[in-house]
Amino acid sequence: MSRPQHRRPEDEDHAYLRDLLGGDGLRGPGDDAALVELGGRVLATIDPVVEGQHFLAGTSPARIGRKLVNRSFSDLAAMGARPKTVLVSFCFGSGWLRRQRRALYRATLAAVERFDARWVGGDLASTPGASVFSCCALGLARRVVGRAALRRGDLLCVTGPLGGSLRSGHHLDFVPRVAFGERLANAHRVRAMIDVSDGLALDLARMLTASGGVGAELDADAVPRRRGVSLEAALGDGEDYELLFAVPPRRLTALRADRGLPAIARRPIGRVTKEAGVWLCRPGAERQRVEPAGWQHDLA
Amino acid sequence: MSRPQHRRPEDEDHAYLRDLLGGDGLRGPGDDAALVELGGRVLATIDPVVEGQHFLAGTSPARIGRKLVNRSFSDLAAMGARPKTVLVSFCFGSGWLRRQRRALYRATLAAVERFDARWVGGDLASTPGASVFSCCALGLARRVVGRAALRRGDLLCVTGPLGGSLRSGHHLDFVPRVAFGERLANAHRVRAMIDVSDGLALDLARMLTASGGVGAELDADAVPRRRGVSLEAALGDGEDYELLFAVPPRRLTALRADRGLPAIARRPIGRVTKEAGVWLCRPGAERQRVEPAGWQHDLA
Repeated sequence: MSRPQHRRPEDEDHAYLRDLLGGDGLRGPGDDAALVELGGRVLATIDPVVEGQHFLAGTSPARIGRKLVNRSFSDLAAMGARPKTVLVSFCFGSGWLRRQRRALYRATLAAVERFDARWVGGDLASTPGASVFSCCALGLARRVVGRAALRRGDLLCVTGPLGGSLRSGHHLDFVPRVAFGERLANAHRVRAMIDVSDGLALDLARMLTASGGVGAELDADAVPRRRGVSLEAALGDGEDYELLFAVPPRRLTALRADRGLPAIARRPIGRVTKEAGVWLCRPGAERQRVEPAGWQHDLA
Repeated sequence: MSRPQHRRPEDEDHAYLRDLLGGDGLRGPGDDAALVELGGRVLATIDPVVEGQHFLAGTSPARIGRKLVNRSFSDLAAMGARPKTVLVSFCFGSGWLRRQRRALYRATLAAVERFDARWVGGDLASTPGASVFSCCALGLARRVVGRAALRRGDLLCVTGPLGGSLRSGHHLDFVPRVAFGERLANAHRVRAMIDVSDGLALDLARMLTASGGVGAELDADAVPRRRGVSLEAALGDGEDYELLFAVPPRRLTALRADRGLPAIARRPIGRVTKEAGVWLCRPGAERQRVEPAGWQHDLA
């Protein structure tokens, strides 16, 4: 299992992290658990970033650290929450040099601080296999938005263009929609929200199922695509980390008028229907059922 | 990276987990983040359990799930905290069948509920390498005990026998010292506490360093050992998950008198000294310096 060492890179890394995170009296990586000052209702998420799944060997530590944090922050954003506190577990496969580990730690911290959150604790380990880094993020929300409250007639919108995330590098460099998530939750009282991580069709299908089996129609021309991306890719690629949300029709006027949101987010791409399933509408053609294929992890 | 599938074991597992955890309106694994009702100061820890490091292939899912949760709970216990909320990230290597994954989920839940905590969220993923499961546990403490407040003259105690954890299976089946941790923090106002996960000598050395470079003498005959275990193994093996704590001498009488603690915990094994380092004392012999070897993860 582990081996005794004299150089002790693990302790060295812990010391480096104590310096990096500041010795301000909080129980950080140097104690058994981190002390977190949070009042009331806390939103919590944990997300792994796995070598060979979420990044390929050769990806810079800076981009891995950013993605690690931003994936969790995107989940908080989808609940209308503001990130406050982060814990990270690093399991390093072989081949990570000290220099690279430190670049990863710095990128993690920078990503956390970009949203005025605090990285308060975590753990280091090695693994005989692929590297796995897990980020647990805690946040606070004035109003919590789930994914399960869709109603027939609600309008569906998305905060940015979809598809081609792997090819474009967006899956590593995206910025989680934290401010939009809060604004949509509080100013626009959106009914339900999810971050599009596994593909629009699949994540929408999950919202529909969670909402008791309603359905949705998407307007093929309205689905925003990243440049050079097919409609199929926009529906199925995943790793977009945009927010998919639903508003009741009576709130559309206010949504359209809000210049604090991107133009894309103010144009509905479809609506919730009574009949189950995800359907694609094209002008002058019959609507077509979309198979909610998307990213699924490879479990037996 | 991931592949589209029709059977969708990932969604199936999510559905199984929703049933297992109950559909009680909390944002569980089925939403983007979990909603946690916690007031005030929260203690948080995240710990991975890695195949090939913390368990070997062939270990039953029931024991892996137990260890996964109990490692984090042991960290909370060492701060004097009571576990309240758990999030788990599962990254499965190949070869985990549905039946085994479900046994792992059930064991995880049973371990969480044993301490009246709640498992509220998490994530599933696959990995091309060794399985990595990460447990983030949140807890509350009336009084928070760190590891960094040792003072010269403090008496050192430990809650149970040490060494031989791998051979005996203790590293999989231990029970975290949650009740003892709370009792020591509140009734006995212990000065500092740590859970012995990397070996008594190494974890003690970490406490000493964190406390500003004081030292410690251990009485060789007083260090409690698991049956058939050498002193060297008791000092260095690790994975004991007993609590090592320090009390000022004036509190020894009360500690000795407390039948709510095991007899071992009420007998000091050493004391904090001004001179740095960990030293071993034997009657009639000169004291001997102990190299704080112990478990270190294999980082470059």
